Amino acid sequence: MKDIEIAQQSEMLPIVEVAKKAGLTEDEIEQYGPYKAKIKLPLVQKEKTKQKLILMTAVNPTPAGEGKSTVTVGLGDALSLLGKKTMIALREPSLGPVMGMKGGATGGGYSQVVPMEDINLHFTGDMHALTTANNTLAALVDNHIYQGNKLNIDQRRVIWKRVLDINDRALRNIVIGLGGITQGIPREDGFDITVASEMMAILCLAKDIEDLKKRIGAIVVGYTFDRKPVTVDELGVTGAIALLLKDALKPNLVQTLAHTPAIVHGGPFANIAHGCNSVLATRTALELADYTVTEAGFGADLGAEKFLDIKAPQLGKYPDTIVIVATVRALKMNGGVAKDQLDKEDVEALQRGSENLKRHIKSMKRYGIPVVVAINQFTADTKVELETLKAICATVDTPAVVADVWGQGGKGALELAEVVAKTCEKPVQVQKLYAREDSLEEKITKIVTEIYGGKDVQLSPKALRQLAQFKELGWDKLPVCMAKTQYSLSDDPKALGAPVDFTIHVREFVPKLGAGFIVALTGNVLTMPGLPKVPAAMGMDLASDGTVTGLY
Amino acid sequence: MKDIEIAQQSEMLPIVEVAKKAGLTEDEIEQYGPYKAKIKLPLVQKEKTKQKLILMTAVNPTPAGEGKSTVTVGLGDALSLLGKKTMIALREPSLGPVMGMKGGATGGGYSQVVPMEDINLHFTGDMHALTTANNTLAALVDNHIYQGNKLNIDQRRVIWKRVLDINDRALRNIVIGLGGITQGIPREDGFDITVASEMMAILCLAKDIEDLKKRIGAIVVGYTFDRKPVTVDELGVTGAIALLLKDALKPNLVQTLAHTPAIVHGGPFANIAHGCNSVLATRTALELADYTVTEAGFGADLGAEKFLDIKAPQLGKYPDTIVIVATVRALKMNGGVAKDQLDKEDVEALQRGSENLKRHIKSMKRYGIPVVVAINQFTADTKVELETLKAICATVDTPAVVADVWGQGGKGALELAEVVAKTCEKPVQVQKLYAREDSLEEKITKIVTEIYGGKDVQLSPKALRQLAQFKELGWDKLPVCMAKTQYSLSDDPKALGAPVDFTIHVREFVPKLGAGFIVALTGNVLTMPGLPKVPAAMGMDLASDGTVTGLY
Repeated sequence: MKDIEIAQQSEMLPIVEVAKKAGLTEDEIEQYGPYKAKIKLPLVQKEKTKQKLILMTAVNPTPAGEGKSTVTVGLGDALSLLGKKTMIALREPSLGPVMGMKGGATGGGYSQVVPMEDINLHFTGDMHALTTANNTLAALVDNHIYQGNKLNIDQRRVIWKRVLDINDRALRNIVIGLGGITQGIPREDGFDITVASEMMAILCLAKDIEDLKKRIGAIVVGYTFDRKPVTVDELGVTGAIALLLKDALKPNLVQTLAHTPAIVHGGPFANIAHGCNSVLATRTALELADYTVTEAGFGADLGAEKFLDIKAPQLGKYPDTIVIVATVRALKMNGGVAKDQLDKEDVEALQRGSENLKRHIKSMKRYGIPVVVAINQFTADTKVELETLKAICATVDTPAVVADVWGQGGKGALELAEVVAKTCEKPVQVQKLYAREDSLEEKITKIVTEIYGGKDVQLSPKALRQLAQFKELGWDKLPVCMAKTQYSLSDDPKALGAPVDFTIHVREFVPKLGAGFIVALTGNVLTMPGLPKVPAAMGMDLASDGTVTGLY
Repeated sequence: MKDIEIAQQSEMLPIVEVAKKAGLTEDEIEQYGPYKAKIKLPLVQKEKTKQKLILMTAVNPTPAGEGKSTVTVGLGDALSLLGKKTMIALREPSLGPVMGMKGGATGGGYSQVVPMEDINLHFTGDMHALTTANNTLAALVDNHIYQGNKLNIDQRRVIWKRVLDINDRALRNIVIGLGGITQGIPREDGFDITVASEMMAILCLAKDIEDLKKRIGAIVVGYTFDRKPVTVDELGVTGAIALLLKDALKPNLVQTLAHTPAIVHGGPFANIAHGCNSVLATRTALELADYTVTEAGFGADLGAEKFLDIKAPQLGKYPDTIVIVATVRALKMNGGVAKDQLDKEDVEALQRGSENLKRHIKSMKRYGIPVVVAINQFTADTKVELETLKAICATVDTPAVVADVWGQGGKGALELAEVVAKTCEKPVQVQKLYAREDSLEEKITKIVTEIYGGKDVQLSPKALRQLAQFKELGWDKLPVCMAKTQYSLSDDPKALGAPVDFTIHVREFVPKLGAGFIVALTGNVLTMPGLPKVPAAMGMDLASDGTVTGLY
């Protein structure tokens, strides 16, 4: 049975019932249809007990699929089955991959959050509010220049790009303002995907409306002709942009197939953005539940590093346990096996590929947080392979538990849940990767050497010029948000496994003063994806009675 | 008190109560927060009685304001006060004017639909769904060309433009696909505002999901190198685009300040699109209420003409009464008075300007439908002026009633409601303006001579070439959707009052096969507005407790 069919055949609880399970009254939520709600903020003080936080991450992804969201949901349901008050906190899917290639992001099989179609399509409109806020600001910037340019903005130095929640390579590099003197000022521009935007990062890092406005006001949209940064506050439109995000800021409540309450809120990609759901969502889950299971995007080199170095300081809470999802298939691919050969047992390839897992185990333990490996079982995995993988984890003193969450839901992750719950009781002594005082270059170097396992960092001439500029502007003490391919620990998507001695190439920095970090674009990473030759859109349909098919 | 303050201080009924008043059970709606809902379709058969339809239109708008939405709401509330089962059917506001100059579109004073902020901002997400559907299709077209171009699409002849629900002049004329061979195929492109899009027209004209899909499939996105039209069906993505509109297709239920049920759904501009709310919304209101009050955008030359010639045939119902809203101020401006002189009594200017009203009365009566004039009273109007205006209407055998809906809500429109209800009992013998068999040129000529009161039509060389092309393609029997300035009956925005002997200049046609009409672009009309020197956005704010200010 397909994921969407399992989801469509499930019996959902009315969202008010789910809210009640989570400890929320009907007055504390705003319903969006019978099965979705927004949680009103600030929360009335809840009786807290444990506030244990579990961060779900993974090995480097491959086309074989790792199922991080699926294991997140399965583990949440398993903790619920063990009688623990649990909430899940996931990111919102982007329509780009839904219509393109990757599909949705609501888990799979019997470990899904529902209503699957709604979450994967427009959901409660957060993405669209972000797109609108971002592009309204862009229009206001161009209009300011057109209407006399009081702030003396250099149209060649506007850095605020437009966005769409669509994979659209044709919009990466464009020229706007053509057509004559009444049509604006011609300049080079480009669209990013919404989930890569600073607006998304701001929504995901803001603690409340006040913080949201402070961050929006601090956004640098470009520079004057004498190279001074221009902020949104100077443009005088902070209030209007905040207004457009007033509902998007509220966390969304849904449920798993097993009715575990789940918050799905904020959706930055982890390769080109900071990859974690919102601080407000995770904070809300922590306030409501004893165990919060949350995920960070792609491999531990991307999402988890950013969770620990960017999000956790804003959240004021580090994970009690980090779970790394691995599959036999993904590790075999990391060990050099082709996609169509994955069904064959290959212990040697598994051993080679497991170097990737071991690198991630090491880098996560470096933060002083206990690690558990979740082996997400696939049908073709052999007993020997599963045992081999467990044995490999044992060599690095890391518990590894096989879970069948796709086929069995929470029941397939009971052992994992027990190990994780026990691990959460261990004391955590967080060892930060870098100090705020470290320079940008030092920060990047620490990420590259201690997390990626690389040798060093090379900055392009442009990046070097920017470093000097940022030092002058006092921006060089900000955290760094790496934009890097998800497929490899290095910046070369073809270097699978655990490459060594590699150099990370930073081609350009993008300052995001509202988000409070500097993005480092490495290798050939793109902030606007393209569609594949046969986009997923071609297989979708809507029946006359409203039934959706072809979403996955 | 400001409109937003009146709205914020009002006590709203829970939307389930409003639904009940309208004859809908809780199961027949989907709640979006406590005060908004979508109505599930198809409706369970309701007990019908009268199904009277009242179309609200106006004289040509001026910066003085006419208050068509305000009178629509006030009349609806007045009919309710008279004990008549009434529903209102309005369009959804576009964020372009909200952030720009015109403001929202939820009425004013004590005649508003609420929640005002929500309706004027993202509402239930329909606009954003349309933007996404439109731009996903655009990305799929460019991707098709990039990925081998099996359909042989000529990139110079792509006519499917991108859209945003934003006033953004810098995006009117752009070049996309720049940056090298992996970034798409360079070509000229441009953004329209979402409310001008064919996707919006399709949503507003579709009768059900099946019709929606048929219309999407029929969209012509461009032409091949040998000049054959290419449709969405040929691209194979009809289902995916329909999927993105599955919720947007459902009408939105809200209420007036006096708790009259109101449907707010679909929002095409009337100057650059067909200007009427959705067929499904009006149909739903007709099924539920005895009296449905709906509006069509701008003056009767634009919205009402399109209601009668484009929407009514799809709706299967013509209005029982047409109400033309006029104000003393707007007519004085039409008579040549400057905006800052409007508070002074000027009977002669009023008489001169009333020629505009008389032209609209005549053109509406031409359809065989009874007309009532609603004089929307402003504080500065003198008794003499109001009596003069009534007397002018009497000379053309048209009842004219003064209403104070801004200050008094429904109570200020009781007499108007009585006159309108009585008028609705008169027999209607619809006289269509043109026959389907008429050629495009004949249709436009009839609109220009019989509705605008002009002399003739002049087609540009490009428009002439297109006419020949459309004849070959069999598109020359479609209805025409005029894109023309709202400020004048002519295509010159400065020709106020009732100009005569003028020529309408058609510079270009845009075929919209999914909508089922051909747009005729006249004069200098633009399908993407710009922002003014001081955009409304600059006066907006969001307080820390979530209170919105500066929306109007």
